[in-house]
Amino acid sequence: MPDLITPTLAGDKLSLSRLLSHIENDSEEGIRALDSLFPHTGKAHLIGVTGAPGTGKSSLVNRLALQFRSQGRRVAILAVDPSSPFTGGAVLGDRVRMRDLSGDPGIFIRSMASRGSLGGLAAASAAMTQAFDAAGYEVILIETVGAGQSEVDVARLAHTTLVVEAPGLGDDIQAIKAGILEIADILVINKADRPGADSTERALKTMLELAHPVEKVFQHHGKTFRTPAATANPAPLWVPPIRRSVATTGEGLPELLEAIEQHAAHLRLTGEWQKRDKARLETELELIVREALFAQFFAGLAPGVIEEHLQQIQRRNLSPREAARQLLREA
Amino acid sequence: MPDLITPTLAGDKLSLSRLLSHIENDSEEGIRALDSLFPHTGKAHLIGVTGAPGTGKSSLVNRLALQFRSQGRRVAILAVDPSSPFTGGAVLGDRVRMRDLSGDPGIFIRSMASRGSLGGLAAASAAMTQAFDAAGYEVILIETVGAGQSEVDVARLAHTTLVVEAPGLGDDIQAIKAGILEIADILVINKADRPGADSTERALKTMLELAHPVEKVFQHHGKTFRTPAATANPAPLWVPPIRRSVATTGEGLPELLEAIEQHAAHLRLTGEWQKRDKARLETELELIVREALFAQFFAGLAPGVIEEHLQQIQRRNLSPREAARQLLREA
Repeated sequence: MPDLITPTLAGDKLSLSRLLSHIENDSEEGIRALDSLFPHTGKAHLIGVTGAPGTGKSSLVNRLALQFRSQGRRVAILAVDPSSPFTGGAVLGDRVRMRDLSGDPGIFIRSMASRGSLGGLAAASAAMTQAFDAAGYEVILIETVGAGQSEVDVARLAHTTLVVEAPGLGDDIQAIKAGILEIADILVINKADRPGADSTERALKTMLELAHPVEKVFQHHGKTFRTPAATANPAPLWVPPIRRSVATTGEGLPELLEAIEQHAAHLRLTGEWQKRDKARLETELELIVREALFAQFFAGLAPGVIEEHLQQIQRRNLSPREAARQLLREA
Repeated sequence: MPDLITPTLAGDKLSLSRLLSHIENDSEEGIRALDSLFPHTGKAHLIGVTGAPGTGKSSLVNRLALQFRSQGRRVAILAVDPSSPFTGGAVLGDRVRMRDLSGDPGIFIRSMASRGSLGGLAAASAAMTQAFDAAGYEVILIETVGAGQSEVDVARLAHTTLVVEAPGLGDDIQAIKAGILEIADILVINKADRPGADSTERALKTMLELAHPVEKVFQHHGKTFRTPAATANPAPLWVPPIRRSVATTGEGLPELLEAIEQHAAHLRLTGEWQKRDKARLETELELIVREALFAQFFAGLAPGVIEEHLQQIQRRNLSPREAARQLLREA
């Protein structure tokens, strides 16, 4: 294989693109490449963008990329598309993006369909993000669709997580919001020119107050009281700001960028940047160890032994847990 | 601990409820209970119900439960709510359900918020489903919100997967559909009394034809040709039917139930029922083995050794993969 590392570190997009394919396929070359790239990582600002379908996330990500570009920063976009676990559902979105952003040498776009295997998506996203980081992309936008485990994984991967809402979506969207608020560093009401933006903002504010009880100092009978929240967490608290945007026109984008920068400054000031970096690397380490342990176990078994146990389980003669105990003794 | 197994197998709801808490908490009692219950499983029809927010899934699940009840069958509902990974977001939905369905001794309802840990959700869902099955619930409805990994996990767990759509949802809903079609055994257009139901059905039909190429036999110059799809898969093919429903009034529910029964008959006829059963048990076995391997590994490490490696990784002196190699040698 030709050396792809040196040109990737020097900014060559085609080499990076080839490396990413090796990484996504989990090939030997990809694994070795990650080891070589790793010392060059740790500089990028990882920004997760998530939210329900219909909020215009993809357009917002494109606009954000352009906004960061106008400041001269190199931007990579990783579009994680869990909509099609079995085929490449990410292709269409890619083509639309390409039309808007291609031709700019400071922008790199890659999409990835989610994997069926446990931890596959998280592991592959983390690896691809590292490649972008080593290749000198200073801002990495990681976009996911849906509401569930993938959003939590994005939140773990990113320094800053944007949760995108839009006015007047479906009726049980409220339930989604309540959960997703907890991973949001910044809330964006996109399509803010549509009717209902005010009531969406009010609803979000109410939920924010429940999720992030702000320090309250009050006087009662001449004495000063502080709410428990204030005493329990003396560090400067980040209350997720709400920003409005219209991705199709670019309205609100400068203000959104400012909020992102403020969050980055907050993370650095409080040491949270390092903590999130460490948590991400710990998760990655754990995933690698888990995969290696299972591969070792699997290689140590006699052929057909799993099938035999499975048949016993299917006949309900053996519980899955008892079968696991037996297999672990045999491996 | 008092014996919860015997009364659970005899149909006592309070004992089942307590057992489920032990199972959800992954306690010693829960693990032992699963072993005792396992020989009594394998009888229930597991039905997954999934779809985007705003489609009225929860109401549909309630109606389905009532419809199955009218045939005298015992029904359990497991509402998997990934909207709140950190707190119990499932509580509200539960209360609404309770109002409609409580008081019927043949219905058992349980909701579960998703877990942060990898495989936590899938493992916990599988375990709780087994408890329902052993307790004699003949139909188990498993409901999830969102679009992503959790839907794929539901599809793996269930014999029959319903994907619920609704007319006129957001604009990038099409992307979701394309992926989720691949896990659907039956497509439901709920809220079918709303405008746009016809165009939703047309769109779904077009996508179905792409996803499930039907056998085509045609004549050309006096010879008979068959399309490759027909020759590659000689077994009777299941083309997901599309059914319309209005969950609020119950319209279309008898027809939906009929489609579910037809799918069950198809699964049994083709041996697919056994195959899905086996695949589910294999996944469960793998998860148990993976967790046990990691626990063993972790217990074998000297205190502080992971922290030391993490610090090396964070300083970019050591890649996560190299650290994993070192740790695996030390464990």
